[in-house]
Amino acid sequence: MTEKEWITYLKKHLFEKPPVFKTYNEDCTVIQKEEQEFLLITTDALVETIHFKLDYYSFFDLGVKLANSNLSDIAACGGEPEWALLTLGSPIPVDVNWAEPFLQGLNQSLNKFGAHLVGGDTVKSPFFFFNLTLFGKTNFPILRKGAKEGDLIFVSRPLGGSSAFLRMVKTSPLKEIPENLKKAHLYPEPEIILGKELSSKNLATSAIDISDGLLLDLWRICEENSVGAELLQEAIPIEPGATLEDALSGGEDYALLFTVSPSNLHQIGEIETKLKRKFFCIGKILPEKDLYLVSEKKERLKLKPKGFDHFNFK
Amino acid sequence: MTEKEWITYLKKHLFEKPPVFKTYNEDCTVIQKEEQEFLLITTDALVETIHFKLDYYSFFDLGVKLANSNLSDIAACGGEPEWALLTLGSPIPVDVNWAEPFLQGLNQSLNKFGAHLVGGDTVKSPFFFFNLTLFGKTNFPILRKGAKEGDLIFVSRPLGGSSAFLRMVKTSPLKEIPENLKKAHLYPEPEIILGKELSSKNLATSAIDISDGLLLDLWRICEENSVGAELLQEAIPIEPGATLEDALSGGEDYALLFTVSPSNLHQIGEIETKLKRKFFCIGKILPEKDLYLVSEKKERLKLKPKGFDHFNFK
Repeated sequence: MTEKEWITYLKKHLFEKPPVFKTYNEDCTVIQKEEQEFLLITTDALVETIHFKLDYYSFFDLGVKLANSNLSDIAACGGEPEWALLTLGSPIPVDVNWAEPFLQGLNQSLNKFGAHLVGGDTVKSPFFFFNLTLFGKTNFPILRKGAKEGDLIFVSRPLGGSSAFLRMVKTSPLKEIPENLKKAHLYPEPEIILGKELSSKNLATSAIDISDGLLLDLWRICEENSVGAELLQEAIPIEPGATLEDALSGGEDYALLFTVSPSNLHQIGEIETKLKRKFFCIGKILPEKDLYLVSEKKERLKLKPKGFDHFNFK
Repeated sequence: MTEKEWITYLKKHLFEKPPVFKTYNEDCTVIQKEEQEFLLITTDALVETIHFKLDYYSFFDLGVKLANSNLSDIAACGGEPEWALLTLGSPIPVDVNWAEPFLQGLNQSLNKFGAHLVGGDTVKSPFFFFNLTLFGKTNFPILRKGAKEGDLIFVSRPLGGSSAFLRMVKTSPLKEIPENLKKAHLYPEPEIILGKELSSKNLATSAIDISDGLLLDLWRICEENSVGAELLQEAIPIEPGATLEDALSGGEDYALLFTVSPSNLHQIGEIETKLKRKFFCIGKILPEKDLYLVSEKKERLKLKPKGFDHFNFK
């Protein structure tokens, strides 16, 4: 099965009736607690050799990355993260030398956004794996569903840095890779603050965190809403040192992609001023279910949504 | 580090301030929502080659076991299970042939006790692993803390069957192993109904699910309360086909161990009548921090709390 087939298939095994608001095709499971109070839950694992290699990840880095990839899911739903549970699978005896920096990295990232580690499970395993389940809350969950024709597509920061790092680390020693690319891959900042702003103003018509590449994640928004999208190549922010291909189809950027009705554009300016940041309008939602890139020469290319494939078992 | 050292060490990395009521040394993390409303969270993983082998586990069985081991933690805290998130790590392409029976087993066990699968993550992995995070709720959480000198020690059903199965499966073909032992290991029933009864009557002074062996789990109760215990050998219920050693130190029984003040003994009788079951009073709590077994010849042996060691990395 492809990942898409699997998610479609999973639907019949997932419970999605009140108070469970949304399960599949979302960054978080959304459960309604009160009229305007929602529980957000997400879980994300890092598996040795699949998601990381210990030759370029320290245990501190792994703790940070595990926290951030989960926090990023909460951010995409406009949530405030609260509690985390860790499952730690280890092939070697648990030892302060690696457990301490791992837990420091994990807690540092969680604590930064007001979340805390409150439990878990430690098991022996043939390989290292780390699984985090993170809970959050929000009054107004942002979903993938909601983007409409004409909505403007924003990304929160330059893309492709994480992918460029992974390309370079195959051939270059770690110390020769530019710091900004290392940071993009190892310490991707979850967009919790932005997500909360968008949620509190009920401003984003849809959102997703870019974990599997811009095109693939944008296409998930499009499919969920039976729409398409047009991107302007010159508007796509690319991390210095990365390529357009990295920005379009590289994974693990953890930037936020969100759509906004053109009539609310001025409110984005207000958030930019408040947060002292700049967000990037990279295109708009189309009525037809296709993905286009308008090149710098104004050529309109039809694209295939390509990105990180979690189900590539070759 | 031993498991005990690890848990002691973990304390400093776990957040345990209001509203977080209890994190380490419990079957679940307990978070207080309202004065008499508590959220219970637990997470438990099954890892290929460590916790199961596919030569005697079907994928259906694995789904059941994963659900039951987590449900059992909720049961030990007197909770009602609600929502589950699954992380599925697979070394082979996801395929209906194994995913369908796995999800059927998982959902069948969850649904039986009113819990539902509401989300998760699927990742590629060098080996199979399954991680479940389960949420529940209760008005009166049963903790390990609370057992007092003189309290009677109960177990909910005969012990040792799971351990006897694991011993036999090393040398005998699966079909030659007695059904009751197969059932004890593969389909251990979580004591949700009993846990809820004990909680609603505020009857158990402490409880734990016997996942790592009677002696080890009883000792956890003792340590948490700075007390000891005396067991009567002839009172310990042993699953037919299992040995006393299986019952004392074998893991994965998932029976409930709980303590009750002698003044409330009549209420246990009421629950037995209501549930049409019989529970087993196997000993009592002592003031001194030691563990004794009184043999059938009335000899009093001092025991070491031995059981399944999750941290045996040899």
